[in-house]
Amino acid sequence: MNGHIDGDVVRVGGDARQRFHDSRGYGYPTGGNGIALAHVEAAHLLYRGDLDAVDGMDFRAFVRDATGNRFLPQFLVYADLRERGFYVSPAREEWLQQVTAPESDLVVYPRGKGPGDGEVAYRVRVVGERQTIAAAALGDCVLAVVDEESEITYFETASPDPAGAADIELPTGVDADLLADRVVCWGPPAALYESGFYGTPLAGRDADHDALQLSLVEAAYLAERGAIALDAATVRERGQTVEGDRFGRRLRTYGALRERNVVPKTGFKFGADFRTYAEFEDIDEFGHSELLVRVLPAGHVFSPRDLSLDVRLANGVRKQMVFAVVDETGGRDGEGITWLRVGRLTP
Amino acid sequence: MNGHIDGDVVRVGGDARQRFHDSRGYGYPTGGNGIALAHVEAAHLLYRGDLDAVDGMDFRAFVRDATGNRFLPQFLVYADLRERGFYVSPAREEWLQQVTAPESDLVVYPRGKGPGDGEVAYRVRVVGERQTIAAAALGDCVLAVVDEESEITYFETASPDPAGAADIELPTGVDADLLADRVVCWGPPAALYESGFYGTPLAGRDADHDALQLSLVEAAYLAERGAIALDAATVRERGQTVEGDRFGRRLRTYGALRERNVVPKTGFKFGADFRTYAEFEDIDEFGHSELLVRVLPAGHVFSPRDLSLDVRLANGVRKQMVFAVVDETGGRDGEGITWLRVGRLTP
Repeated sequence: MNGHIDGDVVRVGGDARQRFHDSRGYGYPTGGNGIALAHVEAAHLLYRGDLDAVDGMDFRAFVRDATGNRFLPQFLVYADLRERGFYVSPAREEWLQQVTAPESDLVVYPRGKGPGDGEVAYRVRVVGERQTIAAAALGDCVLAVVDEESEITYFETASPDPAGAADIELPTGVDADLLADRVVCWGPPAALYESGFYGTPLAGRDADHDALQLSLVEAAYLAERGAIALDAATVRERGQTVEGDRFGRRLRTYGALRERNVVPKTGFKFGADFRTYAEFEDIDEFGHSELLVRVLPAGHVFSPRDLSLDVRLANGVRKQMVFAVVDETGGRDGEGITWLRVGRLTP
Repeated sequence: MNGHIDGDVVRVGGDARQRFHDSRGYGYPTGGNGIALAHVEAAHLLYRGDLDAVDGMDFRAFVRDATGNRFLPQFLVYADLRERGFYVSPAREEWLQQVTAPESDLVVYPRGKGPGDGEVAYRVRVVGERQTIAAAALGDCVLAVVDEESEITYFETASPDPAGAADIELPTGVDADLLADRVVCWGPPAALYESGFYGTPLAGRDADHDALQLSLVEAAYLAERGAIALDAATVRERGQTVEGDRFGRRLRTYGALRERNVVPKTGFKFGADFRTYAEFEDIDEFGHSELLVRVLPAGHVFSPRDLSLDVRLANGVRKQMVFAVVDETGGRDGEGITWLRVGRLTP
């Protein structure tokens, strides 16, 4: 059976509708027994030997004829999902029935379901590893990255709403010195560290906590609330001096997490901004941190390789990777943060 | 007992030599019973209560008086190493006897040894997490990073010499198409993939390998050796077009690894350039990849947080993190690559 290219579809006649569409979910009916196939669908049928040729081209010639760097990644993901037993459609109007898929490339139906069943398992965006992807485009889709060796990595993305049960009453006016790029509190109430998990004792956990080191982010948050006797503006300025605009974004994220009763501590050992604890009652018995948080500016664009690094690391330490995309104008809800969770997915 | 500041040392008289230097390795003798202490040493003695005051200052006042953002990180690392049971000296000429420590901040002696024993356990460089460190400064030292919350992470650095036992005779003139940012070989000899681990079969490992996808790096390497029927310069130009100068560095690193009989494959899933196999005989039974390789330009300067991310990830997947710093002028040995291994260390 043969097809012919007609703009951005490949038309096939004969009994194509029954053979390819009705029984196997390829293409869309164009009246009579004919169907229209997307180029990736046509390539897949050529590859499987179900189509003999498209305008005289075999699979090799058809692939070579396809232009741009988008075709092959799309085909590879399409073929991979088909091999995993899913019916897949291009996310284009003519193919979709009763479902929508804005900003997607492919729609994957639940196993055993097809284009006519009105259900979607995954909305998939496809990128090559050298392309970039805007953080704003993620949160409600699966991202499929085709790496340079044509292996595929799937990421699921979601919009979480971090919340915890860690709450502490703050002290007032604790004596503190601002030193270069950190702060030391002298004789703070033990609860500040032991119940609030603010700071790090000067000589490790076994000392009697008569001096507590704070990061500039912790110190700015505490100074804003009058908990330490430093001028909040001075601490924020120091943060801006040593860290630039990143400091304001990190302080906003730190504050948002604390307001959500989540305890953020440095994520340095994981290469992140923060690790977080949703439950924290006492320094002597606290659990595993659940999230790694990386703070990003509004408009951030991911390199897939950086995303892969973060997600793989989080996975290896049994935490979830969360990005806090900070809109410093405050955003629509006042918090000014879009939370984005990205994890690995095996379809 | 009291000290007084004299430029960059703190002088202490009385029986200081016997009490602090001879029995506990602080400072250096200045004639008679006096010693000179570095500021970090004096701070440590103040902190422990062994010194009462320096020019009338207690520990808090002394720390507040110290200027610059280098003092506190240095003190924190000094105190941490002391707590771990080591004698530690500033890496300065007056303190060191029979040992040298170029480009270091602190010298750590083996447990039970001190300044007079002529042995060194670690040469330590200290940075705060917001400072940067040149790749060229690493390879023969321990890097101690003090993060914003004053926790310390130690990295050991070394100069490895990657080598393997994977060798394969290449075919000649395999038919191939250059497609956007990858290459497809048609009907290649099975050994190219199965013994050489070049490429990825077009439809996964179970297919009969009649089409093999190559990355541009693999393709450029194979084309340079006549193994595939593509013009090497054309493939390299395509690489340069889609990836910029990074492509040349990655190709040089790929080639160097292959010449060392190590098999490099993409490190995308780990956010690295390559993962490598030192032994590779057959696609059906090959082991764990040992190294993650990140390719960097000559003159690269690390952010400690990025370093922490890479090293933590490598650790989590039981691989070693290796950086290939590429000097595109060829460097002194012709290979043009400085290999740098960085791992976690618990002193």
